[in-house]
Amino acid sequence: MEQVGTDADGTRVEDAAMLRALELATRGPENGRNPRVGCVLLDPQGRTLGEGWHGGAGTAHAEVAALEDARRAGHDVRGATAVVTLEPCDHTGRTGPCTEALLAAGVARVVHAVDDPNPAAAGGAARLRAAGVEVVGGVRQDEGEALLTVWLHAVRTGRPWVTLKVATSLDGRVAAADGTSRWITSAAARRHAHGHRAAVDAIAVGTGTALTDDPVLTARPADGSTVDRQPMRVVVGRRDVPEGARLRGPGGPYLHLRTHDVTEVLSRLAERQVRHLLVEGGPTLAAAFLRAGVVDELHAYVAPVLLGAGPSAVADLGITTIDAAPRWRTVRTVPLGDDVLLVARPAPVAPPGAARTPEES
Amino acid sequence: MEQVGTDADGTRVEDAAMLRALELATRGPENGRNPRVGCVLLDPQGRTLGEGWHGGAGTAHAEVAALEDARRAGHDVRGATAVVTLEPCDHTGRTGPCTEALLAAGVARVVHAVDDPNPAAAGGAARLRAAGVEVVGGVRQDEGEALLTVWLHAVRTGRPWVTLKVATSLDGRVAAADGTSRWITSAAARRHAHGHRAAVDAIAVGTGTALTDDPVLTARPADGSTVDRQPMRVVVGRRDVPEGARLRGPGGPYLHLRTHDVTEVLSRLAERQVRHLLVEGGPTLAAAFLRAGVVDELHAYVAPVLLGAGPSAVADLGITTIDAAPRWRTVRTVPLGDDVLLVARPAPVAPPGAARTPEES
Ligand SMILES: NC(=O)c1ccc[n+]([C@@H]2O[C@H](COP(=O)([O-])OP(=O)(O)OC[C@H]3O[C@@H](n4cnc5c(N)ncnc54)[C@H](OP(=O)(O)O)[C@@H]3O)[C@@H](O)[C@H]2O)c1
Ligand SMILES: NC(=O)c1ccc[n+]([C@@H]2O[C@H](COP(=O)([O-])OP(=O)(O)OC[C@H]3O[C@@H](n4cnc5c(N)ncnc54)[C@H](OP(=O)(O)O)[C@@H]3O)[C@@H](O)[C@H]2O)c1
Repeated sequence: MEQVGTDADGTRVEDAAMLRALELATRGPENGRNPRVGCVLLDPQGRTLGEGWHGGAGTAHAEVAALEDARRAGHDVRGATAVVTLEPCDHTGRTGPCTEALLAAGVARVVHAVDDPNPAAAGGAARLRAAGVEVVGGVRQDEGEALLTVWLHAVRTGRPWVTLKVATSLDGRVAAADGTSRWITSAAARRHAHGHRAAVDAIAVGTGTALTDDPVLTARPADGSTVDRQPMRVVVGRRDVPEGARLRGPGGPYLHLRTHDVTEVLSRLAERQVRHLLVEGGPTLAAAFLRAGVVDELHAYVAPVLLGAGPSAVADLGITTIDAAPRWRTVRTVPLGDDVLLVARPAPVAPPGAARTPEES
Repeated sequence: MEQVGTDADGTRVEDAAMLRALELATRGPENGRNPRVGCVLLDPQGRTLGEGWHGGAGTAHAEVAALEDARRAGHDVRGATAVVTLEPCDHTGRTGPCTEALLAAGVARVVHAVDDPNPAAAGGAARLRAAGVEVVGGVRQDEGEALLTVWLHAVRTGRPWVTLKVATSLDGRVAAADGTSRWITSAAARRHAHGHRAAVDAIAVGTGTALTDDPVLTARPADGSTVDRQPMRVVVGRRDVPEGARLRGPGGPYLHLRTHDVTEVLSRLAERQVRHLLVEGGPTLAAAFLRAGVVDELHAYVAPVLLGAGPSAVADLGITTIDAAPRWRTVRTVPLGDDVLLVARPAPVAPPGAARTPEES
């Protein structure tokens, strides 16, 4: 009987296993310091021996979970192929290196989607190859990178991925003239925004918002599911926040950063293993992050209401003329009841004059 | 052989003919003083004898067009059923009354979707019944009303349907700090907006916009089709508009209304048979229309760009607190390249306190 691992059939089987591994990976938590990883173990005939995924820091890595799953089912894993979404790690964290576990189990071949960019964990492929294991990288790499966008960004740049959330009227107001802002957007939009908090490691607001709105800043998914790990609540600014403030009450950890320096905010959070920061305003803090050029994704919830007065979503950005405004590329629009959510990322910078063709109004 | 006009089969055939008539109606122009109407003539066995639609003021009405179509094909129309989207008119305009044409042709039965609300043209059903014709109204009435929303509104209220268009950044700006506004929205959004102009009878801007932007205000559909009847170009405000202004050049008729009174603007336009007015700004004129409570539909083109400064989409509306803001119901969201178009209509007024449930942020 033929070995399928090396021919066209084998490639197809491994490709299917990678799609399955990507699916398994999404069972892990979106937030937390570790990436979401999935693993499928195949025998030389392409049959599945075990499956695993990483459930977050302190739990088994996907490869180890898959090996355990195979053993529990009584399968012999010697000579198996491990199909895994991220290059196996070679460092000893709270769990041992995955390379050791794979070698000890006698795995003969490893197929992975994304190379590990983490200097502390990288080198897994080299270590496995040195021990005689066949290693193939880059299988379904795009899908693997898409799954790990936030984590890869954080590890590669050393600073958290930043999502800026704004919730505005159609004329860009975040509050009415008297400061009231509950509720510009609809219940559907607010539920969506609360759900998104469960995917991040930290939520930041300026002292202005903390003092004016006294928000709770906890993740409360719409499906009623409980959130294992509430995001850290970060207040940025020099003023004091009263002890009785709700964001110092039950919920995630509380951190007050008495600075106006966005770079400092990001490095202080990176030290704390924050991979994903959600900036929820207000206008002054939002403007500071935009001016610093560190916003990776924009979540704009827009409600069909016109206010005519009241604070705008972002304070002065130093933009005086329209052509100087940074452009964003919309990656998704999501109707939410009467509101619409627009998700955008910075547009690649176009050559001068190429972006827009003159037309008459 | 059975007559089908009076049993279940006949009803089904007439219903199908009404859907066809509604489709024919859309071949007529969306703008103009007259409604879009379609007509299908059926013989007693339910076979189509002729079809017609109204091509705009000065051309044959749909019923007359359908009768001519049947005659051209050599069909005998005596005893036929006319299925028509609007109650046949009974007045002599530039063409004779449709009731006379139907009676002269010996039509035995008339089925229509919408009763004619036009006091000058109404009474058609009564006139036909008096002459022994069987008349059934209200077939596919909702679809018929939807087709004629703008026209029915204009005829019932005596003032034009008002669409307010705004094109803003995500923070609600219509221009940058230096006044530059070309281009906040994308080419796709501008093409869409230009195409919509072909559907209206008049476009209004304030003197501020006329003087600052020197717009052309002509309808230029994206498909390159020519527009038979360019919308009237209306400037509202007391200041003079230079003779060389582009909106006084080639394009639709030009009208300068030297007033700040929105009610006066609407009645002056109603006198000129304007059924659909598109208000394209700027912020001051938009606010005046909103304050007057006469905006029937909002077209908000929102671009993923943040400006941080510059004029907002609407000037002060006298709204001081969030609960006092009129609410809109989104009827459509249309992604247009990176931008999104949000189409909204005034929300039915909710009982106090019922609209929104308190939630924590
Ligand atoms: N609808 C929404 O999406 C939304 C969201 C949030 C807030 N809001 C509204 O926004 C309003 C509050 O506006 P805001 O601008 O005062 O809020 P903010 O941005 O939350 O807070 C501003 C404060 O943050 C501090 N700060 C931190 N980094 C800074 C920097 N780089 N530059 C300058 N200051 C910095 C300063 O306070 P120190 O003096 O303490 O240093 C500053 O006064 C409230 O009405 C609230 O309801 C609406
Ligand atoms: N992005 C967009 O969608 C868009 C669209 C249009 C304009 N804009 C921008 O808007 C800016 C112009 O703003 P604007 O507010 O000056 O423009 P505007 O609303 O076009 O014009 C304002 C003027 O209209 C007159 N007016 C008419 N009815 C009025 C009323 N009921 N109350 C008060 N005034 C009335 C007044 O002029 P008199 O003194 O002559 O009476 C007033 O100064 C420009 O920068 C333009 O680029 C942007």
